Amino acid sequence: MSQDKTPATAPSATPELTVPGRRRFLNSAAVAGLGAGLAACNSGSQSAAPAGAASGAAPAASGGSGHAGTSSQPGLHPKPGELDTYYGLWSGGHTGDVRVLGMPSGREILRIPCFVPDALVGWGITNESKKVMGTKADGSLRYTVGDTHHVHASYKDGDYDGRYAFVNDKINSRIARIRLDYFVCDKITEIPNIQGFHGIFPDKRDPVDEKINYTTRVFAGAEFHLPLPNDGKGMDKPETYRALFTCIDVETMNVRWQALIDGNCDLVATSYDGKLAASNQYNTEGGAHFAEMMSAERDACVFFHIARIEQAVKDGKFKTYGDSKVPVVDCTRKSNEDPKTALAAYVSVPKNPHGVNASPDGKYFICSGKLSPTATVIELAKVLDWFDGKLDKIDKAIVAEVELGLGPLHTAFDGRGNAFTTLFLDSQVVKWNVDAAIKFHGGDKTAKYVVDRLDVHYQPGHLNASGSETAKADGKWLAVGCKFSKDRFLPVGPLHPENEQIVDISGEKMILTGDHPVRGEPHDFIIFKRELLRPKQVYSLDDFPNAIKDPKDGGITRNGKKVTVKMTTQAPAYSLPEFTVKKGDEVTLIITNLDKVEDLTHGFAIPKFNVNFIVNPQETASVTFVVDKPGVYWCYCTHFCHALHLEMRSRMFVEA
Amino acid sequence: MSQDKTPATAPSATPELTVPGRRRFLNSAAVAGLGAGLAACNSGSQSAAPAGAASGAAPAASGGSGHAGTSSQPGLHPKPGELDTYYGLWSGGHTGDVRVLGMPSGREILRIPCFVPDALVGWGITNESKKVMGTKADGSLRYTVGDTHHVHASYKDGDYDGRYAFVNDKINSRIARIRLDYFVCDKITEIPNIQGFHGIFPDKRDPVDEKINYTTRVFAGAEFHLPLPNDGKGMDKPETYRALFTCIDVETMNVRWQALIDGNCDLVATSYDGKLAASNQYNTEGGAHFAEMMSAERDACVFFHIARIEQAVKDGKFKTYGDSKVPVVDCTRKSNEDPKTALAAYVSVPKNPHGVNASPDGKYFICSGKLSPTATVIELAKVLDWFDGKLDKIDKAIVAEVELGLGPLHTAFDGRGNAFTTLFLDSQVVKWNVDAAIKFHGGDKTAKYVVDRLDVHYQPGHLNASGSETAKADGKWLAVGCKFSKDRFLPVGPLHPENEQIVDISGEKMILTGDHPVRGEPHDFIIFKRELLRPKQVYSLDDFPNAIKDPKDGGITRNGKKVTVKMTTQAPAYSLPEFTVKKGDEVTLIITNLDKVEDLTHGFAIPKFNVNFIVNPQETASVTFVVDKPGVYWCYCTHFCHALHLEMRSRMFVEA
Repeated sequence: MSQDKTPATAPSATPELTVPGRRRFLNSAAVAGLGAGLAACNSGSQSAAPAGAASGAAPAASGGSGHAGTSSQPGLHPKPGELDTYYGLWSGGHTGDVRVLGMPSGREILRIPCFVPDALVGWGITNESKKVMGTKADGSLRYTVGDTHHVHASYKDGDYDGRYAFVNDKINSRIARIRLDYFVCDKITEIPNIQGFHGIFPDKRDPVDEKINYTTRVFAGAEFHLPLPNDGKGMDKPETYRALFTCIDVETMNVRWQALIDGNCDLVATSYDGKLAASNQYNTEGGAHFAEMMSAERDACVFFHIARIEQAVKDGKFKTYGDSKVPVVDCTRKSNEDPKTALAAYVSVPKNPHGVNASPDGKYFICSGKLSPTATVIELAKVLDWFDGKLDKIDKAIVAEVELGLGPLHTAFDGRGNAFTTLFLDSQVVKWNVDAAIKFHGGDKTAKYVVDRLDVHYQPGHLNASGSETAKADGKWLAVGCKFSKDRFLPVGPLHPENEQIVDISGEKMILTGDHPVRGEPHDFIIFKRELLRPKQVYSLDDFPNAIKDPKDGGITRNGKKVTVKMTTQAPAYSLPEFTVKKGDEVTLIITNLDKVEDLTHGFAIPKFNVNFIVNPQETASVTFVVDKPGVYWCYCTHFCHALHLEMRSRMFVEA
Repeated sequence: MSQDKTPATAPSATPELTVPGRRRFLNSAAVAGLGAGLAACNSGSQSAAPAGAASGAAPAASGGSGHAGTSSQPGLHPKPGELDTYYGLWSGGHTGDVRVLGMPSGREILRIPCFVPDALVGWGITNESKKVMGTKADGSLRYTVGDTHHVHASYKDGDYDGRYAFVNDKINSRIARIRLDYFVCDKITEIPNIQGFHGIFPDKRDPVDEKINYTTRVFAGAEFHLPLPNDGKGMDKPETYRALFTCIDVETMNVRWQALIDGNCDLVATSYDGKLAASNQYNTEGGAHFAEMMSAERDACVFFHIARIEQAVKDGKFKTYGDSKVPVVDCTRKSNEDPKTALAAYVSVPKNPHGVNASPDGKYFICSGKLSPTATVIELAKVLDWFDGKLDKIDKAIVAEVELGLGPLHTAFDGRGNAFTTLFLDSQVVKWNVDAAIKFHGGDKTAKYVVDRLDVHYQPGHLNASGSETAKADGKWLAVGCKFSKDRFLPVGPLHPENEQIVDISGEKMILTGDHPVRGEPHDFIIFKRELLRPKQVYSLDDFPNAIKDPKDGGITRNGKKVTVKMTTQAPAYSLPEFTVKKGDEVTLIITNLDKVEDLTHGFAIPKFNVNFIVNPQETASVTFVVDKPGVYWCYCTHFCHALHLEMRSRMFVEA
C-alpha cells in the first residue's frame, strides 16, 4: 500500500465513485484517506474477515433480503400486550430530542423534547418550557434548532440509578438534563467558549470521596477549536485556535471547570473508579480544512486526571476567557510533561480515531481507528501508573492495537469479555475477544481474537448493548445504528430513515432479529433493564406553585394591559366556558388539569395566536401571548380525552 | 331508560368516576349524555354484544395480556429485509405533520412536516419551506402550531392515483397538499371565515363532466360556528354564529366556494359519482356550551349537491364576508326547502354523530351515533331521488339504523359487504354486514348483522382498512387508532403514546396482530397497496431555479448589507471551506447538493444563528439570517453522509 501523504482531492474535483453496492456511498476522497490509514497500521494484523466481507467486493445492496437477512431470527417481535424487557434511550439528532424505545421490539414509546420546540406538548410555547430552553430579552426562544448525539444516564455503584439522563446539543453547545421519573427535560446549560460539543459522559463515582459512589459530574468534549475569546479577532490564525474539555455539575447544571487542550475532543469515556475521563482526538493537527485534519498518521486519546484538575482549580491555577467566569485549567502537552504534576496525558492512537469506550470490567478504554482498521486497547491501571511516575512512557498503557476491519467506530461489550465494534466501511459488526486481542498484540499470533462478524445495512455508526456501559453488562441485546437504509424499507422520497437493527448477542454467533426505521438522525443510545426505572405517571398539584386546586379559584384578573386567566380542566370541560379580553392585552393563561386518571391528558389550543399545549394529569402549565385581533376564538382540547372531547371547548372573546 | 333531558352536570361539579377498568376514563357527564342517547334509539335493536363486552362490567384493564391478547397472531412482523406490502398515511395530530407507515408492520418510515416547523429537515427555516408555510411582514412564520386530523389522497377511477395527499389543520383552519412523488408538502391554504376545520375529503370525479374521472376538488368541514365576519361584533349572540362548508381546487389550492349552513360540520364524505358531498353534524343546536351541544336527540348529516352549488356560484347567487372574496352560497335549511332547487339537504341522524363514511360499492354513506349506539345507513341513490323530487322526505334515504354498541365513531369496509365500526365506549371494533343491517331495519328481525367483535386497547377513535375508502377495498388489514394505551407499553411518565393496533380482517373473525405505540396524536389514516405509488428518491437540479450546477459558480456577492453565499456539497466537503461576512449583514445562503447517490443527504448547521437544514441529493435549499455577533462559526454537516462526515465543515468568519 502507498505511503503517499497527498491530501485527498479537492471537493469540486471529486469524481463519482462507480463501485457498486454498499460502498457506492463513499467517494474516492475517503478511499484515499483510508488507504493512508491502512498503510500506517502494522502493529497488529489478523486477517479475520470472512471471504468477501472485508475485501473490495461488496455484497449486493439491492433487494430487501440481503446478506444479513439470511441470519435473521423472526418471531421475536412482542405479541400484542407483551411488554418489552428493556428501555432504550436514543438521541434524536437534529430533531433535538431524546427518544424512548422499548427493547427488543424497537418500538418508540416517547419523544422527550429538549433543545427544539415541540408542538405536540407545547415545548417552547409554555412559559415553563421556555424557562428551561432559554429566551432572549423579548421573550422569544434563544434557539430553535439543536443536534443531539449522545445520551447517557446517571450512575450509582457502576449501574444506572434512574435519576437523570444527559444529552448534548452540538449546534449550540448545550447540555440538557432529563428527569427519568417524569421523562422530561428540566435543565439546559449553554457551555461557554466552545463549538462542536460532541461527546458527553457522566462520571461514575467521585475521584476522591469514596462515599460518593454515584454521578455528580458530567464531562463534555468539544470538536471545533476556536479563537479564545471568539470575538472576531485572530480569525485568520487557526493555529492559535483552541478546544476545551468541560466538566458540569449534575445537580446545579453549572459548569464547574474547563480544560484547555492541544488538538480537539470527540467522544468521552469515564473510569469506574472516578479518577479518569478521556476523549479521543481526531484532529491533533489542529487542521481547519478537511485534508489537514487527516494529515497525521496517529492522533490521540487525551486522559484527564480529575482530582488534580479540581485541586488546580481550588489552588487558583486557572484562567478565564471572554465574558465567562468558568475557570480554565491548562491541559496542553507542553504544560503537562512531568507525570507527577500532569493534569492530562495524551495516548497515541492511529489516524482520526472515533469513539472511546470503557469496558464493563473497569480495566480498559478502547479507541477505534476510523481511518485505521484498528482498535487500540488502553489499560487504565497503566495510565494511573504513568501519572504516579511508575510508567516511563504513556503509550506503554496501550496493551493491544489490533486490526478489526475497515472503518472501526464504536465498541460495545457483553460482560463476558467480548467487544463488538462497528465497521463503518465494511458495514459490519465484528465481535472480538479483548483478552485474546491483548495476547495477540503481546506476541501470541495463535490467539484468535475475532469471534464473529455480522453484515449490517448499511454504514453503522454507534452500536450499544444492554447494560454495556455499566458494570452489569448482560450480553443479551445489541442495537446497531445504521446510517443508510437503502432498499430496507418502502421508498418514501429522497429522505430515507436510518435503520436501527436489533441483534441477539446471547450466543456465540450474532443473530439479526429486527430492522427498525427511525427518523434521522439518532446517533447514540443506551439500553438497560426496565427494572432500573420507576416512572411516575401522574403529577402532584403541590409541585406547581401556580396550580389552581379548585375550579372556584379560577377566573380573570387584570393589571393594566396584563390579564391573567386561570382555569381548570376536567374531562370533558374547561372550568371557564368563555372569557373576555381586550385587543392589545398581554394574556397569561394558567391551566391546571384536575383529572387524576393516568393517561388523561388535555390540550388547549387557541386559533390564530400560536397557542397550543398539553396539561398532563395534575399538572399546571401556562402560556403568555398578546391578542392583536378582535373576534371570537374557540379554544378547544387538542389531546383526546373523552367521548365528548370534540365538545370540550371554551371561547375567548377579544373586544375591539 | 330515562328520557330525562337535563344537561350533563357542570364541569366543576363533575364527580370522579370510580368504575374500574377501561371505563374509568369516562366520567359521569358522559354517562349521563350517553344514557339520553341510548334512550332515544329504538328504531333498530339487536343485542349482539357478547357477554360482558357491552355490559356495565368492563374487562380488566390491568396487565399487558388483556382480552385482545388472547386472539393475537404473533409472527407477522416482517423479518429483517422484508418490505411491507402497504403504505399507511397517518395524520400527526398537534405534531402538525403527516406520517408514513409501512403496513402491516406498523413501522414509521417518514414524517412529512406540514404546518409546524421541523428542525430535522429545516422546515420553517429554509426560505423554500417558509414560502409554503406563510410568513408575517417581518419574515417570521405566521403560525408555529397545527393540529392535523384527517389525511386523504387524490383519486382516479375510484382508486388512489398517487398524485397528492391532503391534510387539515384544525387550529388555524389550513389545508396542506402533499406531493406523493417526493413526499413533501408543497402548498398550504388558509380558509377564511371558519374555525375548527376538521373533516376533509377529495372528490372522486367531476359532478358534470364524465371525462374528469379524477380528483379536482377537496371539501372541508368546519366544526365551530362564528360571527360572520369575525370582527369583534356580535360575539355575545351565539345564535347568530354560522359555520361554513368549503370547496378547494386541488391544483391551485385556492378556495373555490363556501356554503353557509345551519348547525356545524364535522367529518366529510364524497360519493363515487362526484355528485354529492356530505358532513355529519353534531351541533345542530348551534350550542356554545357543552351541555347545549348535546341537548337534541337527533342531529344530522348535511348533503351538498355540488353541481347545483357551482351553478349558483356561476349565476352570481352568493355573498362574501369580511375581507374574503370567496363566494358563499346559501345552504341553510330555510333556503333549501324545495328539493328541485335545493343546494343542500339535511338527513336526520341520532345524537351527536361522529363520522360519515362512503361504502366502497358507492351506494351508502354511514354515520355513527357517538352518543347513540347506532349506525345510520343512508342510500345515496335515494338522496339524489329527493333532489330530483322523486322522494317526498329526505329521511326516507335512511335504509338502516341499527344498534352496534356504545359510542360508535367511524366505519371502514372490507369490500365484501362488511363494515367495521369503532365503539369508543366499549373499546371494541364491531364487524357488521351492511345488507343484513338493511334487512333487519326493514323488518327481518332474523337478519344477524353483527358478524364479530374484537376488544381493542383502549378507546378507539378512527379505524381504517386497506383500500377501504376506494372502490378497491381488499379486506386484508385493519388499523385501529386507540386513544389510550395504559398498560400496553413500558411506562414513560405522564404522557402516554397512543396505540395503533393492526388487525387481520382477511377471515371471518378479526385477529389482532400487533400493538404499535405512536406519538400523540394521530387521528385518521389511509392504507393502500405499495404499487399505487412511484416515489422519486433523487431530485433534479433543473427543478430549482437557484441551483448551483458547478462548484465554480459558487461564491459570495454583496449588495449593500445583503450578502449572498452560494456553495455546493459533495461528500465529505462543502465547496467553500470558509466565507467572510460582516456583523450586521443579512446573509442568504444557497446550497446545492451535487451528490447524486440515493440516501446521500447533507445537513448544514451554523452555531448560534438558528440555522440548520438538509439538502437531499440534487436538491437546492436556501436560508436567510442576520449575523449580529462577530467571531468564527464552524458550519458543519448535521446529516450523516460519509466516513469523514465529522470532518465535513466550513467556517463563517463574521468581522466585527
